[in-house]
Amino acid sequence: MNDIPANAMLNAMPDLETRTGPEDHQNLRLWLRLLTCCTLIESDIRTRLRQEHGTTLPRFDLMAQLERAPQGMKMSELSRHMMVTNGNITGITDQLEKEGLVVRNKVATDRRSSIIKLTPKGRRAFKKMADSHEAWIQELFSHVSDKSRKAMFEALGELKLVAQTRLTPRG
Amino acid sequence: MNDIPANAMLNAMPDLETRTGPEDHQNLRLWLRLLTCCTLIESDIRTRLRQEHGTTLPRFDLMAQLERAPQGMKMSELSRHMMVTNGNITGITDQLEKEGLVVRNKVATDRRSSIIKLTPKGRRAFKKMADSHEAWIQELFSHVSDKSRKAMFEALGELKLVAQTRLTPRG
Repeated sequence: MNDIPANAMLNAMPDLETRTGPEDHQNLRLWLRLLTCCTLIESDIRTRLRQEHGTTLPRFDLMAQLERAPQGMKMSELSRHMMVTNGNITGITDQLEKEGLVVRNKVATDRRSSIIKLTPKGRRAFKKMADSHEAWIQELFSHVSDKSRKAMFEALGELKLVAQTRLTPRG
Repeated sequence: MNDIPANAMLNAMPDLETRTGPEDHQNLRLWLRLLTCCTLIESDIRTRLRQEHGTTLPRFDLMAQLERAPQGMKMSELSRHMMVTNGNITGITDQLEKEGLVVRNKVATDRRSSIIKLTPKGRRAFKKMADSHEAWIQELFSHVSDKSRKAMFEALGELKLVAQTRLTPRG
């Protein structure tokens, strides 16, 4: 899912799922329904991050990784952990450093690599964005019944395990 | 979700969802679980399309749109309907035309726009990819219990409706 304006997505009816016919392609329909939900929500998050925080999903994602690693992370670890988005990690890090949101420290034992950390300013900036992000998600999901949320959480847990187990790494 | 090798994703444990603490952020956890499932599956589809069909998700997505529109589509309609991926539609169309998979026909009433259609060769090529795609999805979901698939389909139906209704177009 890339950067598509939320309204382009909403106008795009019939949506992905309705691409399939009325015949029996139940698993394909399930996958397209899942993908449609993700695409709609992710696109909204991108728009809100841009409009309300002047930032992008790759920047948010990178800061989220660092927030979870108070001891800092190497560039190589960062790129391995960026799951949502595959932005230009070096470029984003340069930008965040220039804005005083992260620092790079040389590693004593390995001159070629450095450790990236959030600065206190970066930590505060991330906290604001993360709080907004959670509030948007809260608001959205508050309109979904408890029963459905519980059912989704359990069933997606099963799917996640299957996907993690079955999808062979292929390089 | 961009082009990340499937193995990078699988190595990336702890995954997105486990980023949250043990505290009560249930809706956030639900969203991250949903996103993790989508990211894992979409990344696998990208890898398989590349390795088994020498193609990309934006190409597949564009051909899927055309397959659903036997009368053809204008460039503007195509870009509105490309939900998954925001590839360079003009570039992809040029490439597919060069390979004889699509044709462009001028619109009699509007000299500036043209109608894109799959050629019979394009239709055959798409059918092969779409059959593989459905078979991968079938295989994956066959390991998920009937109960979970049914529960997901219903609950995601509710979420999709909420997302389509609540997420205001914002340009």
